[in-house]
Amino acid sequence: MLETLQKIVDNAPGAQASILMGFDGIAVMQALAADVDLDIESIAMEFSFRFIELRKAAESLEMGEISDIAIKAAQATILVRVLNEEFFVLLMLGDPRHLGKGRYVLRMQAPDLVSQL
Amino acid sequence: MLETLQKIVDNAPGAQASILMGFDGIAVMQALAADVDLDIESIAMEFSFRFIELRKAAESLEMGEISDIAIKAAQATILVRVLNEEFFVLLMLGDPRHLGKGRYVLRMQAPDLVSQL
Repeated sequence: MLETLQKIVDNAPGAQASILMGFDGIAVMQALAADVDLDIESIAMEFSFRFIELRKAAESLEMGEISDIAIKAAQATILVRVLNEEFFVLLMLGDPRHLGKGRYVLRMQAPDLVSQL
Repeated sequence: MLETLQKIVDNAPGAQASILMGFDGIAVMQALAADVDLDIESIAMEFSFRFIELRKAAESLEMGEISDIAIKAAQATILVRVLNEEFFVLLMLGDPRHLGKGRYVLRMQAPDLVSQL
């Protein structure tokens, strides 16, 4: 699992960290890019409760299950892939220019993470 | 403003509707694609309060101001561009394949909307 998370960080241009977390805010495992010092667990935890709210909204609006969330802010971009009812993987990019590539890498590695849960 | 919202819908492949709304959930104006019947106001309103929560989280984590949010669900994809402190424009896609193009169209038309606020 750590290997997969590290692969995500290594293959996504501008990536700073990836983390696998439960929607209850409990971290499973994380990987950081070289020379990056970041409390990715606190960041993902802070958002996890908001993600639950987004899922509830989508369901109540009959949009179906949320599979991906992207949030671009001034200093960082967060890409989220929902793995199943309980877990998600989050990728943090310092440079948002390769957002599409980041999303692609997440999607490609997601089945690998799911199989290890 | 209606013209710009209509242009967003017409130029984004798979688009169903666009709406300009305040973060307080009050709709300013909306545009629908031809043959689409959708309560885009209720959908945007339901999410608007969640968007405020995401903005608060990003600020508290020193990620800076959120400029874009994307939420992909099974039946629909929502793209959001923050226009300023008070307003956002939301684009709903029925087909998520052209998510990147949709984001591009939103970004291109955003200055036009801002200038009309």
